[in-house]
Amino acid sequence: MKVLWTKRYAQRTQRMHSSAVRELLKVTEQPDVISFAGGLPAPEVFPVKEFQEACQKVLNEHGPKALQYSTTEGYRPLREMIARHTARYGIVVDADHILITSGSQQALDLIGKIFINPGDHVLVEKPTYLGALQAWNAYQVEYVTVGLDDDGMRTDELEEALRSGPKFIYALPNFHNPAGVTLTLERRRQLIQLADHYGVPIIEDDPYGQLRYEGEHLPSLVMLDNQYQAHNGASYSGNVIYLSTFSKTLAPGLRLGWVIAPKEIIQKLVQAKQGTDLHTSTFNQMVAYEVARGGFLDRHVRSIRAVYSERRDAMLRALERYFPPEVHWTRPQGGLFLWVVLPEHLDAAQVLQEAVKERVAFVPGRAFYPDGTGHNTMRLNFSNAAPEKIEEGIKRLGRVLKETLSSVALSPVKS
Amino acid sequence: MKVLWTKRYAQRTQRMHSSAVRELLKVTEQPDVISFAGGLPAPEVFPVKEFQEACQKVLNEHGPKALQYSTTEGYRPLREMIARHTARYGIVVDADHILITSGSQQALDLIGKIFINPGDHVLVEKPTYLGALQAWNAYQVEYVTVGLDDDGMRTDELEEALRSGPKFIYALPNFHNPAGVTLTLERRRQLIQLADHYGVPIIEDDPYGQLRYEGEHLPSLVMLDNQYQAHNGASYSGNVIYLSTFSKTLAPGLRLGWVIAPKEIIQKLVQAKQGTDLHTSTFNQMVAYEVARGGFLDRHVRSIRAVYSERRDAMLRALERYFPPEVHWTRPQGGLFLWVVLPEHLDAAQVLQEAVKERVAFVPGRAFYPDGTGHNTMRLNFSNAAPEKIEEGIKRLGRVLKETLSSVALSPVKS
Repeated sequence: MKVLWTKRYAQRTQRMHSSAVRELLKVTEQPDVISFAGGLPAPEVFPVKEFQEACQKVLNEHGPKALQYSTTEGYRPLREMIARHTARYGIVVDADHILITSGSQQALDLIGKIFINPGDHVLVEKPTYLGALQAWNAYQVEYVTVGLDDDGMRTDELEEALRSGPKFIYALPNFHNPAGVTLTLERRRQLIQLADHYGVPIIEDDPYGQLRYEGEHLPSLVMLDNQYQAHNGASYSGNVIYLSTFSKTLAPGLRLGWVIAPKEIIQKLVQAKQGTDLHTSTFNQMVAYEVARGGFLDRHVRSIRAVYSERRDAMLRALERYFPPEVHWTRPQGGLFLWVVLPEHLDAAQVLQEAVKERVAFVPGRAFYPDGTGHNTMRLNFSNAAPEKIEEGIKRLGRVLKETLSSVALSPVKS
Repeated sequence: MKVLWTKRYAQRTQRMHSSAVRELLKVTEQPDVISFAGGLPAPEVFPVKEFQEACQKVLNEHGPKALQYSTTEGYRPLREMIARHTARYGIVVDADHILITSGSQQALDLIGKIFINPGDHVLVEKPTYLGALQAWNAYQVEYVTVGLDDDGMRTDELEEALRSGPKFIYALPNFHNPAGVTLTLERRRQLIQLADHYGVPIIEDDPYGQLRYEGEHLPSLVMLDNQYQAHNGASYSGNVIYLSTFSKTLAPGLRLGWVIAPKEIIQKLVQAKQGTDLHTSTFNQMVAYEVARGGFLDRHVRSIRAVYSERRDAMLRALERYFPPEVHWTRPQGGLFLWVVLPEHLDAAQVLQEAVKERVAFVPGRAFYPDGTGHNTMRLNFSNAAPEKIEEGIKRLGRVLKETLSSVALSPVKS
């Protein structure tokens, strides 16, 4: 091509890179590779038959309406169903507080679009969800970070981070991606109090909340803020914007997520969404509603929990058995991921190169760190592979780690 | 809510407003209103039966794969089909030049994201597609405009506009939305030559190219640029990025569009799309491919042309019959819209208020003017209503216009 387009990129593209996760998905398509890299749900749990019935029903009953343009806000029966569902978990809102998005990823993009000026600070956990970094890098954000431990976000680091005046706090309280940890109730309360004290609102990202395999459900940040603001629990304070998705409970290929926010913010998000993709697929919204309604979603989530819980246990057992003692990992109570910390002198990206030769893959953790640290960490997904594959994959990975550790021990000390 | 979120909006939201078109769609949902306002395809032409069959086939043959995450670039068989299809119209590219987007609207957003810095100039027609303005306002663009007449973009105004150094030219050569006009072959060549002379690339937006009701297909700007650059017609110069969609030929409710661009730019768009919605619905891409393949799309487009051509003719006849002689309109050779110019002293927004009382609606043209002019223009859609409704609606609108003209003639002159 002539050079008309090159050198015309906007400044913001300097921080757009191809996601390590997405690029890896391509390598790991080869059938003999056991991949812990993606964040893929198990295909075996997708309710294919129910989708077939729902497609027929939607096209029979709604006909052309299912294929026509529709409102930006989303299909009202679906929004009402989401409102009924979240009310059971103490998030009491009506359909006008809810915007349907093209996956939760779009919610992150739209939030960036309406809130982030270039140079604005956003407070994130370290590590944090890669998709949020990708969405907000495009708005030229600066990150302020707080660490994570087994109890989730380190609230003891929060106060100092809040003093920098971030626009909002981004938190993943349940079964963190990538770290697999869950924010304790005590720390949830501390987070709410500190956010209130410094006047900083919160984005609560909760894609996995339904996928708990042990322990009790913990109240959402939305609900705790309602209580803290002396709302009576049946009204929404609006300080916490809540994101979730059907990607982990029904099917990610539909691209259906949602935002719960104050109505004024929903209106602004709607305006941003009009310029972004007009609306989310009418047909997919109707089909998802048809599949989920009448109690199916609850039954289906129970069956997903059973499958994933078994896979998590298989991975934890295999880790005990095959990983060298210098390596540590989190023990998630739910979700899709588990987090591994290698000895400081190992580089997970180098381990990956060896691992791929052994036909096993994972995501090196550095991509999840906005400050480029985390070289000795890795994310393992346990939802996608069957238990036998998990055992075999962790066995291979354990071998790679042991070999790397012994070869590093033998090699001269690096400067 | 507490005021934590308010006053935190990004600067760019100052130029985000709710679209007049979308807001009107809500008013016009009442069944007794005859609406020429939206840009809706006729629901009668949607191939509902073929969609039912395709949904079954996709879920039977691909099973869980149709519901799983997939690559950002899009479903390869669909991209290959698009490449085969556009090759017939002289746009010879391969699948790697094509990105599937969540409707053509998303292509506009992603292009804004990767190319527009705040304050950059973009050259648009006046009037131009509202969705492009909505997409790019969010990137704080400045517009340079050239007028339109019955032969499309006024290339005699182009040279001066190009001297301001716009980042790119945005053109809708076929059956313009909103103006209904088509850029003549001579002007297409002038546009290509001037763009080359000033080194400014072009976005060619072509949602309606397939929907021609009379006259001969004109070569695309992509093809003309290939020729001008002395490429042999079988290679792609890359100066013109081409956008199109299945919204007008299959169904808008699927949200499926595509971009044709140099591979390097496709990669950048892919990175931007990863942060925006990860990928377009796997299921919808597979279903659209299944419906469109094997020659169905061609047959279906022929039947759409027959229906819309009849509706266009019905509207043109009714305009002749019912509209006052002071009013002028375009005679589109294809597409969905026709453009009306009222006498200078009338305000189409005021006419709309009266029209809605008479249960007929349209879009006042001002929204399509980036500079806020165009007060005396209106866009009429002829694809959505049946011919009898079109006749009745234009009759009502003609009455409103005549009454407005006579009442304005009687009222004192405004300062």
